[in-house]
Amino acid sequence: MGKLVLIPRPTIERLPLYLRSLTLLDESGVEVVSSEELGRILGITSVQIRKDLAYFGEFGRRGVGYDVADLMQQITEILGVNRPNKFAIVGAGHLGQALARYEGFTEYGFMLAAIFDADPKKIGMEVAGQQVLSADYVTEVVKSLGIQIGVLTVPAPAAQPVADQLIKAGVRAIWNFAPTRIEAPIDIEVRQENLIVGLLALSYHLAQGK
Amino acid sequence: MGKLVLIPRPTIERLPLYLRSLTLLDESGVEVVSSEELGRILGITSVQIRKDLAYFGEFGRRGVGYDVADLMQQITEILGVNRPNKFAIVGAGHLGQALARYEGFTEYGFMLAAIFDADPKKIGMEVAGQQVLSADYVTEVVKSLGIQIGVLTVPAPAAQPVADQLIKAGVRAIWNFAPTRIEAPIDIEVRQENLIVGLLALSYHLAQGK
Repeated sequence: MGKLVLIPRPTIERLPLYLRSLTLLDESGVEVVSSEELGRILGITSVQIRKDLAYFGEFGRRGVGYDVADLMQQITEILGVNRPNKFAIVGAGHLGQALARYEGFTEYGFMLAAIFDADPKKIGMEVAGQQVLSADYVTEVVKSLGIQIGVLTVPAPAAQPVADQLIKAGVRAIWNFAPTRIEAPIDIEVRQENLIVGLLALSYHLAQGK
Repeated sequence: MGKLVLIPRPTIERLPLYLRSLTLLDESGVEVVSSEELGRILGITSVQIRKDLAYFGEFGRRGVGYDVADLMQQITEILGVNRPNKFAIVGAGHLGQALARYEGFTEYGFMLAAIFDADPKKIGMEVAGQQVLSADYVTEVVKSLGIQIGVLTVPAPAAQPVADQLIKAGVRAIWNFAPTRIEAPIDIEVRQENLIVGLLALSYHLAQGK
């Protein structure tokens, strides 16, 4: 593709759902799917689906539907998962280990290339087929393996120093689970994960008497 | 309050950020804050802040700002965190343990009231001050403790049966981390957490050459 496509975040967050359904349809030999059928599978309105997919150009044909293989290919390229993506996890505590073992990642070509911890008791332990490496080697290992995505599952005080090391080593995107904001140059994409939001959204609904 | 307020999800997801900043300002003795100041603290535009806070009525005064204590109180009530919220975790694997120990929850009055697992090796283990209970007792314990929020960190095949047990026991909201959708009656709020979305959003930005 190569062209720059600016897609709203809620749409981006639905793309994996589309991709998974399209993959299943493709494996079942389905070649064309309507927005209504996709909507039924996913529990999303067909209007929303047509609006989301309109960002990818006009490959829906009115009254016919979408070419399954073509749409799969387009979404795969847009999401950058048409090639393997290496990531590193810094912090081999419970959350780091849970993410290292999360099966949904490999399905999209995300490969855990390294996992680090500062705790000597964790170094050398095997997690998801990788030996936990000393956090002293973050810069060298990330650089030599060409890792572009860093996942931070360290305590808050370690987040910024580790982020700085990752950036120095060439990481271009950081997924931060530490409960603190991190600073990064404008060309580094940072995603701040705040787990409290999940409980607050539920609590809000309970408070509204839903 | 008691009145029904329908607030868009992105706004709800910013409320904890507002609440945290307001709490810090309040602790520092600040009584009034402008949307520009809040914006600088949070890295959000003042226009966005005024739009978000307009859902709570007109307590911003043009040219003056927001009453810190009043706004804190309003957001606290809207989010339903003006009282303790008990939650239960089913699944004491790495993710369940990471959530059980997550410090950000208690800050908002969320209390881990019980944690369950089906694995005899995990039952009896202590996690975040709670003994892991047998999953056989989910219904009884959740009912007797009056727990309203259930967190699912079980493997996919267990998700629906456990959700059914939780709902039968009186849970009104479910946060599902299992990589599968669950069915629930319309009056039960379900939040599906899909961790792959985080990596895909980063990968999308890398693919777009950001």
